[in-house]
Amino acid sequence: MLGNFTYCNPTKLYFGKNALEGLKEELPKYGKNVLLVYGGGSIKKNGIYDKVVAVLKECGKQIFEDAGVMPNPTTDKLAEGVARAREAKADLILAVGGGSVCDYAKAVSVSVNCDEDPWDKYYIRFEEPTCEIVPVGCVLTMVGTGSEMNGGSVITNREQKLKIGHVFGEEVFPKFSVLDPEYTYTLPKYQMVSGIYDIMSHILEQYFSGTDDNTSDYIMEGLLRSLIHSANVAVKDSTNYEARSNIMWTATWALNTFIAKGKDTDWEVHMLGQAVGAHTDATHGMTLAAVSMPYYRLIMPYGLAKFARYAVAVWGVDPAGKSQETVASEGLAKMEAWMKSIGLVMNITDLGAAPEMIDGLVESTLVMQGGYKVLTKEDIRNIFVQSL
Amino acid sequence: MLGNFTYCNPTKLYFGKNALEGLKEELPKYGKNVLLVYGGGSIKKNGIYDKVVAVLKECGKQIFEDAGVMPNPTTDKLAEGVARAREAKADLILAVGGGSVCDYAKAVSVSVNCDEDPWDKYYIRFEEPTCEIVPVGCVLTMVGTGSEMNGGSVITNREQKLKIGHVFGEEVFPKFSVLDPEYTYTLPKYQMVSGIYDIMSHILEQYFSGTDDNTSDYIMEGLLRSLIHSANVAVKDSTNYEARSNIMWTATWALNTFIAKGKDTDWEVHMLGQAVGAHTDATHGMTLAAVSMPYYRLIMPYGLAKFARYAVAVWGVDPAGKSQETVASEGLAKMEAWMKSIGLVMNITDLGAAPEMIDGLVESTLVMQGGYKVLTKEDIRNIFVQSL
Repeated sequence: MLGNFTYCNPTKLYFGKNALEGLKEELPKYGKNVLLVYGGGSIKKNGIYDKVVAVLKECGKQIFEDAGVMPNPTTDKLAEGVARAREAKADLILAVGGGSVCDYAKAVSVSVNCDEDPWDKYYIRFEEPTCEIVPVGCVLTMVGTGSEMNGGSVITNREQKLKIGHVFGEEVFPKFSVLDPEYTYTLPKYQMVSGIYDIMSHILEQYFSGTDDNTSDYIMEGLLRSLIHSANVAVKDSTNYEARSNIMWTATWALNTFIAKGKDTDWEVHMLGQAVGAHTDATHGMTLAAVSMPYYRLIMPYGLAKFARYAVAVWGVDPAGKSQETVASEGLAKMEAWMKSIGLVMNITDLGAAPEMIDGLVESTLVMQGGYKVLTKEDIRNIFVQSL
Repeated sequence: MLGNFTYCNPTKLYFGKNALEGLKEELPKYGKNVLLVYGGGSIKKNGIYDKVVAVLKECGKQIFEDAGVMPNPTTDKLAEGVARAREAKADLILAVGGGSVCDYAKAVSVSVNCDEDPWDKYYIRFEEPTCEIVPVGCVLTMVGTGSEMNGGSVITNREQKLKIGHVFGEEVFPKFSVLDPEYTYTLPKYQMVSGIYDIMSHILEQYFSGTDDNTSDYIMEGLLRSLIHSANVAVKDSTNYEARSNIMWTATWALNTFIAKGKDTDWEVHMLGQAVGAHTDATHGMTLAAVSMPYYRLIMPYGLAKFARYAVAVWGVDPAGKSQETVASEGLAKMEAWMKSIGLVMNITDLGAAPEMIDGLVESTLVMQGGYKVLTKEDIRNIFVQSL
């Protein structure tokens, strides 16, 4: 654990079957007006909306709705939510949905009382909130982003073709999150698998950096092994509670700041994936999957020892009598085969990208420091071309 | 992750070299009167006392001292601390020391405004605080107990020959903890190694239960591998910052409620060890080490699959062509050899126990549910006899 850091994560989690009971413990802590934020209405079909509304009414809350949060929440939608929260004089923003809905709720929470343009302040200038923040709570229905226990908030500006994430401090973290693995059962397989790779990518983004000995890396190897095991069960049996609950728990801990401690990270796969998302509106996890293998094969020589360790510790490659390079390559080959086996999209063409979009994708990709290689524009172009 | 649970850990951690800078951020949040709690005075020799006092003065605090907290804090000392905190009208209790000092500070924090006998209320009847709690902060100088980020508080009643731990809820957790790995350098090797085994025992107590597939078990395997690796470095080179920092971080996460999620646990090694501690006043981690191997060999047949998994995942036993029992036994043999190699005390005789004390030790050992075997009195006797 080289380097200095602080850690604080005050989010209270209610986990397991009937975790929604926890909402009854939390609601009395807040005022009467609740802005209920959700997406396209799937929570109305699967009954979660009715359950949440029943608890809100039981606790005497006044409900104001802000529906229609899209998979990549936009600045236009954010403006709408801010107006709605102001009208409602919201005492609590309750996000019911997946990571996009949670991300969006946090964006609204720091913008309601903000006098400046939130996109410019938070997503372009990366400033911290200076206004009062409306508290956020989450009822999670889709796992992957970890947004239920962190300060992350990714917003897309369609006009500028930019999808940018701000990682806010603990004062913006959800005050509580309700995690019932059964709430994730009705999610289509495509979304479930996409979420699984989002989780894996979060771990790998933090794992592939540094040459020091760091407890966080050992923890990540454990999380990856658990995730792979549970994913294999869940793709065959989507209502296997044990597997879905392990995946849900792993998702939360993959991105709640814990495993990043002592690590430098560049999050470059996310930079590549977010560019694809901004240009195609494809599902986040799938954009990460589609660019991962070309990216990892490109950086492997610069972090060879770590890639070899990954191959052995996570993918069970037998290193006996093999060069580090062979071991590392075998690990990536096993990873690629596994990704295909669970149904991930392995190229950006299938996500709606085309050769003529490459220039724009390269332009939209932020280049970050902290990983094994700082990408050149040519590297980025090569990755996207190989991802076609 | 079977079973329902809540998770909340609001303790803020300042980690790394010069982490004491974090104290300056925290102190302004509290009133003027600080009760400075510490042990036998080693912090005066190594200069940590002076550094902490300088920060307290810089922040304009009135310092009241409560020194002399012993390795197994007693009810008598607790009464003294409560009186001192009342005199001081303490706004903050600042524990500077190891787990005993933190445990004691928490005991004082819930007793200052308590009208009943705290021993009876918290440690015999296991009730929760109903009075106002004085906030606690920690500056850690010895790792092992995890007390810096949990609600655990072990107190010894000499008269009753009982050493009992209460695990309080998050309102009793330290508000902040300062974790500077360099503060642990001056600790004698015996104490360092004892702390290392305390950490390992915390993980194993939570690992050896259940037959389900649980993400927590994978995380624990990672923590154990990191701990063993760093311990091997630290026993040869006690000022290796990387190793000592990994050990410090692992200790915190081994017992801050995280890895217990989804697990049933009996903490039986601690019940055995605490009996030894109550009768001999031996160092906590060494009491755990001295009883562990007879205990694990006794319960191994009842959790055979898990012991075999442990042997492979943590100790690198090659399972090819071996029975589960052989694999499991080889794992325990490797564990035992490693324990000896780092200098742990492997029997209770060396800790001051004698055959004539066995009856008393058996009497003092609490029997708990949740592990692979609920011990009989005869089991307990056998463990202590084999530990002599």
